[in-house]
Formats: sequence, structure tokens, C-alpha cells
Amino acid sequence: MLRMDDGAVAAAMFTTNQFAAAPVQISRDHLRNSRGHASVLIVNSGCANAATGPHGYADAQTIGDCVAQECGCAPDAVLMNSTGIIGKRLPLANIQKAIAPLAQQCVPGSAEPFARAIMTTDTRVKMSTRLVAATTSGAAQCNATPATAANANSQNVKNAMNQPQIRVTGVAKGAGMIHPNMATMIAVITTDAALEPHELDAMLRVAVEQSFHRISIDGDTSTNDSVFAFASAQRGAAPDHGELQRAFCEVARELARMIVCDGEGFTRAFEVRVRGAASATDALDVAKTAATSMLVRCAITGGDPNWGRLLAAAGRSCARVNPERVSLRVGELVLFHNGQPADIRKDIAAAEFCKPSVVIEFDLGLGTHDDFFISSGLTQEYVKLNSEYST
Amino acid sequence: MLRMDDGAVAAAMFTTNQFAAAPVQISRDHLRNSRGHASVLIVNSGCANAATGPHGYADAQTIGDCVAQECGCAPDAVLMNSTGIIGKRLPLANIQKAIAPLAQQCVPGSAEPFARAIMTTDTRVKMSTRLVAATTSGAAQCNATPATAANANSQNVKNAMNQPQIRVTGVAKGAGMIHPNMATMIAVITTDAALEPHELDAMLRVAVEQSFHRISIDGDTSTNDSVFAFASAQRGAAPDHGELQRAFCEVARELARMIVCDGEGFTRAFEVRVRGAASATDALDVAKTAATSMLVRCAITGGDPNWGRLLAAAGRSCARVNPERVSLRVGELVLFHNGQPADIRKDIAAAEFCKPSVVIEFDLGLGTHDDFFISSGLTQEYVKLNSEYST
Repeated sequence: MLRMDDGAVAAAMFTTNQFAAAPVQISRDHLRNSRGHASVLIVNSGCANAATGPHGYADAQTIGDCVAQECGCAPDAVLMNSTGIIGKRLPLANIQKAIAPLAQQCVPGSAEPFARAIMTTDTRVKMSTRLVAATTSGAAQCNATPATAANANSQNVKNAMNQPQIRVTGVAKGAGMIHPNMATMIAVITTDAALEPHELDAMLRVAVEQSFHRISIDGDTSTNDSVFAFASAQRGAAPDHGELQRAFCEVARELARMIVCDGEGFTRAFEVRVRGAASATDALDVAKTAATSMLVRCAITGGDPNWGRLLAAAGRSCARVNPERVSLRVGELVLFHNGQPADIRKDIAAAEFCKPSVVIEFDLGLGTHDDFFISSGLTQEYVKLNSEYST
Repeated sequence: MLRMDDGAVAAAMFTTNQFAAAPVQISRDHLRNSRGHASVLIVNSGCANAATGPHGYADAQTIGDCVAQECGCAPDAVLMNSTGIIGKRLPLANIQKAIAPLAQQCVPGSAEPFARAIMTTDTRVKMSTRLVAATTSGAAQCNATPATAANANSQNVKNAMNQPQIRVTGVAKGAGMIHPNMATMIAVITTDAALEPHELDAMLRVAVEQSFHRISIDGDTSTNDSVFAFASAQRGAAPDHGELQRAFCEVARELARMIVCDGEGFTRAFEVRVRGAASATDALDVAKTAATSMLVRCAITGGDPNWGRLLAAAGRSCARVNPERVSLRVGELVLFHNGQPADIRKDIAAAEFCKPSVVIEFDLGLGTHDDFFISSGLTQEYVKLNSEYST
């Protein structure tokens, strides 16, 4: 359970899956009814409460009502999510029993216990914090919680002690695959800045677009994926929105990368950067198609300089690609230039593909648009874990 | 090398990849120039001759000219393809040396040596034959080649001896992944029926749509995928076109299934059938999304009855899906009905998912359209082989 001050502003982005889980449907309704306000988020693992029909929906409603009662807030002030196997009912009685103690233990301001509690097969707590100068001098001193202290860099925290600062803290659970059925991704970004609901919503959308929408592990959009944002207004007036937006983006990107690098069977991450595309859509399309290609991901796992697979992925994307204009690099090494393979020794190319983090760069030579996408090598361990999950 | 009689009618469907290999570009041009006629097909493995620039294009042209000279045909009568690693030049001298002996050994009518020659990591020769009654009594007796005898069922062949028959024979190389870089798929369907170029082309397109366009192993469209068709007119007039089309479709479907079942690391095939879709596009979209989902494919490998992944795949497809109308079965077993999970014991569900060939059926309950898609379980062996390919 994560608690914010009463009346906190809230926003969320939910899975677009048409089998959206009951807690997703209910959270969506609550946010609409409350016009962007919420003060409690409750999450369970082990069961996604998706594809459970009217019974599952009623279960989630019961939990929401129980949380509202124990936390002394309106039912619409409760947001929720579940992660785990699809098609099974929640163990409702167990969850109900846990709510009263949770509501008593849980105090606003500490995100770290929440970050720890939502871990399933994650091997690391995923948190990220940025501090932004507040514009109003009347804002209170920054009170570094253990959560913040553990993750913000220390210089940043020291500054925070001396001047009014707005904090942006994000936590996430990732794509560990044994217990979360579908690489369910849950992230929460909180800030103590004062923001209107539409401002928080816009800030979240921009941040998600540049982070969680630029990573892939399974290629499967789960029934439960959700990113929540809360703004408590504890620090009074909002700071410079550009600065705050940047902090949101950095936190979201750091969390997204943490998710990729903590996937099961993880060996190495890689980023595909595209520039010179004829359109923004084309840039993303090439980056995403190459980063999610199963053959490319297998090659990355093996540190195999099989760069033809990257070109082939670009070529089958929907983007406009003219082979004679395309250049391809791994790190600083040119592999293919203006439609012709570079004369590169295989061991030199292999060394680049064996780095802990591989950066691939396409220049399509057709325009000015760029984008990127991040993924990881596909491993035998991943297949093993996902072949055995429910049995 | 595959030789047909001079003046044979030809058609082909090529990869839509924008990095289409040089032999694909040249074959496309030759077919256009000859207005649908060709008499020789030459294929090499080990090198895809893709992403090789103008040099690679010139290499392919040299090979084509050399074949035309040795076979005594026009350059445009030569079709070609290559399969193997992308971005490397062909060993031109070696190939040139081989052409004259090949042209001497190769006689029209025997497809089996060709089927054997194009195998790379395929473990089995992939051939399929159907016989169709000819409509003209003047057609010659069917001369069963070893190729045909090895694959058509014997009853079929016996009939062929007693009455004029049109033969449709297909051969394919599949998605073995070590040497063919990109699961390059090459298939050839030949018939001795007399067909106009536009008739053969139309017949091929219908057959491919129901077969090779309904299977997936990697999700990657290669730079070299091609399906060729030849009609020699040896049997005189064309038979009933409906019958001949059916034979083309059956041959193509049988080859497609052989390709799926001979993929590296293959454990079991599965077919996703969709009915009750609101449109034809929706039916295919759900079938394809579910059949190509990495998580679904992992579950299939493990014989894991994790059917929530199937619903989640349907839910993230672009098709219209209403969870309350959806039913899902594996074999005869109902797993999910009208928006609610069925009360099925896990061991009973698991038994269905452990069968050698798993059939999944969605009923979307929204219309009258249906479609299907075939894939195989994703295995650790597959990842292993594709991580190590080029090094």
C-alpha cells in the first residue's frame, strides 16, 4: 500500500489490452469520478485478477471499499493493481485481513517499503529520485526519507538540505517473469509539487512516452500494466514546469532501464538509436522493429556480430528505408555504410557486440527524425522460466 | 538447379523486405521482362547475397548470365535465390565453376535432387505432390519420377498410371536456423498443367496466402524469402482450375507445416483457430498475435496450460474483442467461456497442452469470420542456436 496526503492529485496510464484486469478497470473509473484525485494505491502479487469476469470485478471492488474504510477516504480515492497469473480469482479473505494492519503501518512519504513490497521475481528494488529547485521560498525544507537517501546521488541530496526542493521519486516492479504472469509492469511516480490534475497527467504522458514506451522484453502488453503518478502539493507552488518535466522523464527512464536490466535470464541490454528518418513514426518503427526482433535479440545474447539481422529488421519495418542511404554502427564501429558492408574484421565487430551494454545506431539518411528503443538479449534462461511458469 | 522445359510459364512471390537480396531483385526483373516465363532456377546456400551493394548485384548478374549460357536460354529465363549470412559477398569463382556440370546433370522433371540440394539445416527433404485429373484426353501418361513416387500416397500414384493426370509438386527449404541466416524460406511449386502466366500467378498467390502466410517461426521476414511456381504445359490443356487450385493449396499447406515442424529446437507445433470475428482482418489478427506471442510460445514448449497468455494476446491485438463474448478452447476442452474462466483441473488442461500438436480455438462471438495461424513452441535450443550463429 502506498499512501499520499488526502486530496492528492493523481494520474495514470493503463494497459491498452482489451482484457484489462478488474483493478485496471476500477482504477480507471475511480480516477474519472474523482477528476484526478486519489490518496491510496494498493497492489497485490500472485494473481492478476484478469479474465475473471463479474466475480473478479466484484472482488476488486470489495478490496477498494475495504481500503477506503480503513484509510478513511472516499472509495474513489483508492487506486489498485494486481500482478500474477491470469484467469484465477483473488484469495479475497486473505487480502481483506491484511488491509487494516497495512493502513496503520503505511504513512505518506516513504516509498521504499512500497518499492520493496511490489517486488516479485525482481532481484533489486527499483527506485529513482530527482530533486528540482522550488520556485516558492515558503516551501518547507526537504526531508530526506530513507527512500530518497538511498537513491538520489549524494550531492543532490546535500543541495536538498540547503534550499527548498521539489522531489520526484519513482518506483517500479519489473519484468521478472516467473511470478508476474505477463511481465506486468507497475510504476509509480510521486512528487510533492503542487500540480493541477491535467498538468500531472500531461507530465506523466510525456515521461512514459520517452521511457516505458521505449522498452520491450516480451513484446506482450499485459492485462495489468499501469503507471501511476501522484502529486501531494506538500511543497506548495509548482516549480518551473520544464525542470519538473525533465525530472519526471529522468526518473521514468531510469526505472525503465532498471526493468530491462533486471529481466530474468538477463545477460546484456542494448539500445537501438535511429536518426535520419523521414518521419518520427519511421524513426520509432525502425528502432522498435530492430530492438524487438527475436533474431537480433538472440545475436545480442551471444555477442554475435551478425549485423545483417539488424538491416533485415529495418528492411521489414513499415518505415521508409532506402538501402543505399543506410549506415549502421555498433558503438563507434561502422558496419555498413551507404548500402555497402564495411570491411571489418569479425573479431573486432564481435568485441563491440560483447560489451555489457551495446549501442546500435542507424542513420537512414532520409530526414531529420530520430528515436530509440531499449531491449535485452533473448536468453535460454528466459525461455526456460517462461515455459515452466504456471505448472 | 531446377530446370523446366523451355518456355515454361513462371510466377513468384518475393519478400517485402526493403533490403531484398540481389538475387530477389534480379529474379523480379527477369520475370517482369519475360512476362512470366522462365526455365531455370538456381539457388545457393551459405551466403544470402543481401546488403552487398552494387558488387553483390553484379555477382548475381554474372551468375545469371553464366547459367543462361550453359543452359542455352535467355538471361531473363533464369530465376535465382541465395540463402545464408547477410552482408557477405558470394564466392563467385566457386559458383561459376559449378554451373556447367550442374546444367549437364540437371534434367527437367526431377524435383527431388533439387529438394535435397537446397537443404541446409533442414533434417528432412520437404516435398509434397498432388495429382489432378486432366480434362484433355490427349495428355500424355503420367511418368512418375522418383520425386513423386517418394511423396505422393501410393493410391494416388496408382491412379495416375491409369488416366491422364496433372501433377503439382512442391519442394521447400525451411526455417532451420544455423546456416540460413534469417529462416530464409524458399519454396517451388511446379505443375505440368498448361496455364497462362496470369493464371499461374493468381493460383500461387491464393496458395501462399493460405499456407506460408499463416506460419511463423521467428517473426522476422527475411531479405531472401521467395516462393516460385512453374507450369510446363507438358500435359497440354489445363484441367478444372478449381481442382488445380485446391492441389496448389494442399501442396503449399503441407510444405508450410513441414517447415514449422522441422525448425531447430522444435518440440511441438500449435495452431490457433479463430472464429466468430467481426471481420476477416480481425480473425487473422487474433490468430497471428496469439500464435506469435513469445509468452504463448514458451508456454506451448513447456506444455504449460497458462491460457491467460492466449487471452492477453487476443486482448492486445488490433482486432475488436469483447471479453464477455470470448470463448477459448484447447482441443475439445473449454478453458474460458463468455468472459469467465471454466472450472478445469490444471492436470487435465496440462494434458491438452502436452499433446504433440496443440489446437487452440477462439470464438470471439462477434461475427462470422474465421482464420488460423500455425507456429511452434519457442525453445531454449532455438535461442542457443541463434545466439551462436555467425561466430
